Amino acid sequence: MTPSELHDDAIIIDGLIIAKWERALLEDMRKGGLTAANCTVSVWEGFKATVDNIVRTQALMDECSDLVRPVHTTADITKAKEEGKTGIIFGFQNAQAFEDQIGYVEIFKKLGVGIVQMCYNTQNMVGTGCYERDGGLSGFGREIVAEMNRVGMMCDLSHVGANTSREVILESKQPVCYSHCLPSGLKEHPRNKSDEELKFIADNGGFVGVTMFTPFLRAGVNATVDDYVEAIEYIMNIVGEDAIGIGTDFTQGHDQQFFEWLTHDKGYARRLTSFGEIINPKGIRTVGEFPNLTEALLRRGMSERQVRKIMGENWVRVLRDVWGA
Amino acid sequence: MTPSELHDDAIIIDGLIIAKWERALLEDMRKGGLTAANCTVSVWEGFKATVDNIVRTQALMDECSDLVRPVHTTADITKAKEEGKTGIIFGFQNAQAFEDQIGYVEIFKKLGVGIVQMCYNTQNMVGTGCYERDGGLSGFGREIVAEMNRVGMMCDLSHVGANTSREVILESKQPVCYSHCLPSGLKEHPRNKSDEELKFIADNGGFVGVTMFTPFLRAGVNATVDDYVEAIEYIMNIVGEDAIGIGTDFTQGHDQQFFEWLTHDKGYARRLTSFGEIINPKGIRTVGEFPNLTEALLRRGMSERQVRKIMGENWVRVLRDVWGA
Repeated sequence: MTPSELHDDAIIIDGLIIAKWERALLEDMRKGGLTAANCTVSVWEGFKATVDNIVRTQALMDECSDLVRPVHTTADITKAKEEGKTGIIFGFQNAQAFEDQIGYVEIFKKLGVGIVQMCYNTQNMVGTGCYERDGGLSGFGREIVAEMNRVGMMCDLSHVGANTSREVILESKQPVCYSHCLPSGLKEHPRNKSDEELKFIADNGGFVGVTMFTPFLRAGVNATVDDYVEAIEYIMNIVGEDAIGIGTDFTQGHDQQFFEWLTHDKGYARRLTSFGEIINPKGIRTVGEFPNLTEALLRRGMSERQVRKIMGENWVRVLRDVWGA
Repeated sequence: MTPSELHDDAIIIDGLIIAKWERALLEDMRKGGLTAANCTVSVWEGFKATVDNIVRTQALMDECSDLVRPVHTTADITKAKEEGKTGIIFGFQNAQAFEDQIGYVEIFKKLGVGIVQMCYNTQNMVGTGCYERDGGLSGFGREIVAEMNRVGMMCDLSHVGANTSREVILESKQPVCYSHCLPSGLKEHPRNKSDEELKFIADNGGFVGVTMFTPFLRAGVNATVDDYVEAIEYIMNIVGEDAIGIGTDFTQGHDQQFFEWLTHDKGYARRLTSFGEIINPKGIRTVGEFPNLTEALLRRGMSERQVRKIMGENWVRVLRDVWGA
C-alpha cells in the first residue's frame, strides 16, 4: 500500500481545528481526506453566543451536506468514512459557555458538543488556564467534571494550567485529553507539556493529541512536517502508541482580528501572549495537505499499524470510551 | 445627651443589609433611625438578573420615597439625614454580575452600586470565596479592581478567601473593606477573620464593618446585643476607632428557601454550609431595634465620640475616600 493509499484507507481524525467556518474549509477537509474533526464552536463566548455559533455552523453544515455530517457518536464517524464525508464534532475551548449552570452541559451534549476544554488560558469558575497562576480545580469545576462524565463529554486540558489539569485527570472517571499540545522537552513554553505531565495523563488512562503550531515547535516558523513528526514521535515515546493522536490546531481562513481576540483575556481584556507570524509547518500548511503527514510518519519509519493508530484509530477508541457509543 | 438622643442625632450607617425588599423593611429602617445602608441587590445573579433586581428595587423605592432616597455620593447621605429618610446604597455580594465585561463595572456604578464584594463564598473569574481553597486574585480580577478604583466603587472582602483578600488589599489604590465580619479570635469559623487579617486590612488603609450573625458569634444563638458589642470592641482594639463601623447582615423578611439559595454554590449547586437556626442577638433582632446598639456601646463605656464614629461617621469618611464625593 502506498502512503497515499494508506491515507485514503485509514480513519483520519483531527483532534482540534479552529478554522474559519466556510465552505472552502469543508472542501479542504475532503481534499485532506479527514474522516472527522473536533471543531471549535466556543472560546470566550457565554451560553447564548455559543448557541448562536452552533446555529450558524449547523446552517453551513446543512448547506454543505455533500461534504460533511454531524458526529454525535463514533458510529457517525464510521458513517462519515463510508459516505466519503468529514464528520464534524463540535468542541469548546473553554467552559465559559456553561456559565454557572451545570445543566447546560447536557444541553450542549444534545447539540453535538463532544469535547470541552475546561479553561482557555485564564481563570474561569472551573479552574485556571495555562497563562496565569493556577489555583487548581474549583468545587464547581468538580461538579462540571462529574456532569461531563455522566453525559459523556470529554475533558480537554490543552490550554489548562498544570494544577487544574492534574486535578481534572484525577477527578475524571473517564479518559481526559490534551487534544492539541507539544512537548516542553523539545521547546520550553507555557503552552507546552512537560515529560512528567505527558506521562501523568497517560498513566491515568488519558490521551494526547499532538499539535504543530510553529511558535511552540523547536524549529519555530521554519518547521516542516518532519519537525511535526519529530514531536509526535517524542510524545509517543512517553505515552505509548495507543494514547496518541493528531490535533493540528489549524486556523486557516482567520484574519489578524481573530488572533487578537484569541490572545486577549475574554477576547478584549489584557493581552496574554503574542504569536508573531502564524504559519504552519511546510508540507502541512493547510488541511488539504493532510496526506503529507501520513507519508512523513511512514518516512520516519513508523509501521502502517502505528500510523493508522496515530492518524485516527486511537482517537476513535478513546472517544467511544467517553461517549459510550 | 441620652443614648436615644445621641442615636437620633448621629449618622447611623449599616454596612450590610440583605433583607427582603418590601415597604415593611423600609419602615423598620426609619424606626431604627438608619441614615443609610448598603443593601444587597446581587449575590449569585448574572448581569441581566441583577439589572432586573435593581429595576424592581428602584420601583419599590419610588413607591416609598417618603421613607428612602437613593445614595450615589456621601452628599446623598447628608441629604437623607436632613430629610429624615434612609439612604439606600446598592451593593453586590459577588462580582458575578460583571460577568466577563470590565465595562459593566461603570454601568453598575451609574445605576447606584457603590460597594461590590469580589467573590461570594466560592470561585469566580475574579478570585475565590472563603468556603473553598483559594488560589488568589486572578489577572482579570486585577483588571476589575483597577476599574472599580477608577469609577469609585468599594471592594468588599467579607465572604472572600484569605489569599484573594490579601491580594485585593495590596492591589487596590483605594481603601477596601470587610463590610460585615466577626473575629476568629472570639470564634473560629471560615467566615471569621483572624487578628492578623484584621490588622493587615487596617494597616493598609482598609475598613472593617462588624456583623452580628449569631452562628459566628462566641455566644451563638443565645447572643445578646452585648455580645455584639464585645465583638465590636475586640475588633476596635485591633483596627483602631477610625477604621471600624457596623455591618449587621440583617436578613429579615426572608424565608428558608432564600437561605437555601444563599448556602448553595450558584444558588442551586453543592451545599457550602448550613446555618442552623437564624436569629439575631437579643436586643437587636430587627432593624427597628438599632437604637439599642447605640445604648449598648455607651453602656460598654465607649465615649460619645467613639460611638458616633462606629455607628456611622467612619463609614461616611471611607465611602467619601472611595467614591470621591
